[in-house]
Amino acid sequence: MDTLTRLEETIAARKGADPSTSYVAQLHAKGTPIIARKLGEEAVEAVVAALAEDRDELVGEAADVIFHLMVLLNNKEITLAEVMAELDRRDGVSGIDEKASRSANSAKGAA
Amino acid sequence: MDTLTRLEETIAARKGADPSTSYVAQLHAKGTPIIARKLGEEAVEAVVAALAEDRDELVGEAADVIFHLMVLLNNKEITLAEVMAELDRRDGVSGIDEKASRSANSAKGAA
Amino acid sequence: MDTLTRLEETIAARKGADPSTSYVAQLHAKGTPIIARKLGEEAVEAVVAALAEDRDELVGEAADVIFHLMVLLNNKEITLAEVMAELDRRDGVSGIDEKASRSANSAKGAA
Amino acid sequence: MDTLTRLEETIAARKGADPSTSYVAQLHAKGTPIIARKLGEEAVEAVVAALAEDRDELVGEAADVIFHLMVLLNNKEITLAEVMAELDRRDGVSGIDEKASRSANSAKGAA
Repeated sequence: MDTLTRLEETIAARKGADPSTSYVAQLHAKGTPIIARKLGEEAVEAVVAALAEDRDELVGEAADVIFHLMVLLNNKEITLAEVMAELDRRDGVSGIDEKASRSANSAKGAA
Repeated sequence: MDTLTRLEETIAARKGADPSTSYVAQLHAKGTPIIARKLGEEAVEAVVAALAEDRDELVGEAADVIFHLMVLLNNKEITLAEVMAELDRRDGVSGIDEKASRSANSAKGAA
Repeated sequence: MDTLTRLEETIAARKGADPSTSYVAQLHAKGTPIIARKLGEEAVEAVVAALAEDRDELVGEAADVIFHLMVLLNNKEITLAEVMAELDRRDGVSGIDEKASRSANSAKGAA
Repeated sequence: MDTLTRLEETIAARKGADPSTSYVAQLHAKGTPIIARKLGEEAVEAVVAALAEDRDELVGEAADVIFHLMVLLNNKEITLAEVMAELDRRDGVSGIDEKASRSANSAKGAA
């Protein structure tokens, strides 16, 4: 079984565990705002690691971003398969066109 | 082949493409600061989507976070396999213990 | 009158303006999630500018952070005076003690 | 003297203090990446507080954003006066026009 599928199962299994022995249970007990905050903070740390040219730190922060993103998805009852399907769907469109089509009705420009 | 492996290959293949026809090439041409910035911005958008209870938006933003994280990793010559290995390594440790051990020498507390 | 006080008045005055002619009115029309998102994105841009050693960019991004923070405060009916009072209150305590006291019951460590 | 001017002086005065007794000195000793990271994290916390409808928390996080932004400016030898001058300069232009003019050559759209 691949890493993310196994991680998704681990997160689901620990969701209802004792918060004193499980970090995942602790996050779920704190609720969506705290989980979302952790995702945002880990992303900031990945940004800083990339710009500070700290390769090992970036590997670790990338893992943190993925981990906390997956806890957030589980918290909002979204499966990894849904996100992968969205990535697959976009892969059929060229990057530029895809980004342009997504941006058409959004607040963002072509960046 | 799974989604992320294929995405990693697509990103690597488009790296040297014409920036006028490839969003990935455009990002690489702009450099690490712009790619890192996009990752941070997409994470903020995922945080907001989660708290605004916009499920479809969160699926899309989660895909955006993963996509831009993978472009950043490629930009810094880090493979997806390295990040997955880090996630696997942590999976052998209980969440709480793991987070505690990672935090011991870092600027962050036990959160 | 100083810059931030005048800016606070400008933001309050434009709140109900025509969104087609006022950026502040546009932000308020879009609502709290979009205003909060802009604050987060501008902060990411300031982080990147600081690390990319782009001094002029950092001056501009710092102004963007303050501007969007003030729009968010106005959106949530918080006055600049309240935030300044909080900063004054903390100034009476030494930095380390203050941070420690704030962190005592929070998810963060002493960083 | 107003709050931010006094805060700027306090930050400058503590810059060279003993890191074991001053949070500002601690931040400067850790360097730009850690200070920038703290700014990004505090902004994420302000975003979450705004969306979680936690008014008191938002006042505190807004103060944290301003404080860490000012430490970052000091770290990069930018004065508060420069940032205020930039805000004043923009105030002479209507918001929409201003944002459009700033965005013209940037990676962002009209948002």
